[in-house]
Amino acid sequence: MTYKSKKRLVQVYTGNGKGKTTAAIGLAIRAAGAGYKVYIQQFIKGRIYSELKALSKIKNIKAEQCGRGCFIKGKPTMLDKICAQSGLLRAEQIIMSGKYDLVILDEVNVALKLGLIECEKVIDIISRKPKDVEIVLTGRYCPSCILECADLVTEMREIKHPYKKGIPARRGIEY
Amino acid sequence: MTYKSKKRLVQVYTGNGKGKTTAAIGLAIRAAGAGYKVYIQQFIKGRIYSELKALSKIKNIKAEQCGRGCFIKGKPTMLDKICAQSGLLRAEQIIMSGKYDLVILDEVNVALKLGLIECEKVIDIISRKPKDVEIVLTGRYCPSCILECADLVTEMREIKHPYKKGIPARRGIEY
Repeated sequence: MTYKSKKRLVQVYTGNGKGKTTAAIGLAIRAAGAGYKVYIQQFIKGRIYSELKALSKIKNIKAEQCGRGCFIKGKPTMLDKICAQSGLLRAEQIIMSGKYDLVILDEVNVALKLGLIECEKVIDIISRKPKDVEIVLTGRYCPSCILECADLVTEMREIKHPYKKGIPARRGIEY
Repeated sequence: MTYKSKKRLVQVYTGNGKGKTTAAIGLAIRAAGAGYKVYIQQFIKGRIYSELKALSKIKNIKAEQCGRGCFIKGKPTMLDKICAQSGLLRAEQIIMSGKYDLVILDEVNVALKLGLIECEKVIDIISRKPKDVEIVLTGRYCPSCILECADLVTEMREIKHPYKKGIPARRGIEY
């Protein structure tokens, strides 16, 4: 049974552990290696992360960002909302075009949690997706309404972590 | 604080959920994107998986396999053991050479669980690793002796999964 012949799914990677975005990147690499077209929209993040540099060199992968590149403290601004909503619109276009086999909405769960975009909008997109497009949603705090309409959900659980709060993540490993 | 200036760690991705190997692949991409050298040894697996095809095109990533390319049912054969042990020897050489910044032992936990290689040997390698080499171990069933000496452990928990037993994984998505 080939991939092409099977209905594609909605996958979620959530939880407080490491490996959500990295798992999505791995999926992108795997799909591209199999000849499929991949689109990645990164919410929240706006800096050019190491992974995007490497991904941009791979045929079949298109990666974009809609974050403002700074950590959102407290209440998000109108600009944060506009950025996230335009990113979602762009992703919707890509999904509905049917030109991409795999669409990754990286950190979209955090954008939902912060109220930058609405659950109803994401669920609406998922419900209307062409059946041959696989959608992957990542980020902590995945809302239950999204979990309900996902086919495959994995929780990354932190079992052991060496860093204390305030110690920065390492370039090339955590971002 | 840069990556270079920090002690590198031992990371484990285990659990019954999806995303362990894909997270490791994502880490490889991210590290390569930051200019670091990456070595991947895949245990158990022996087929040329989609991800290896794409990874082999990326500068700074070297990927090898030591599995026999078939599912091990029941008791592993002597050949399975020899393959896994030679893969571990090769990984040990690479780690001790200090020429690679990130070394991924993919599915090594399964090889340990099956008794193809010994926990003591893996712990010995970890304990002697150069301090500027990051090691990542993936696979279900990570033994507690490995968990104890790891710095960072993430469990991928299956929350929801659409497949019933016996339905094959999809090329380009699950492998």
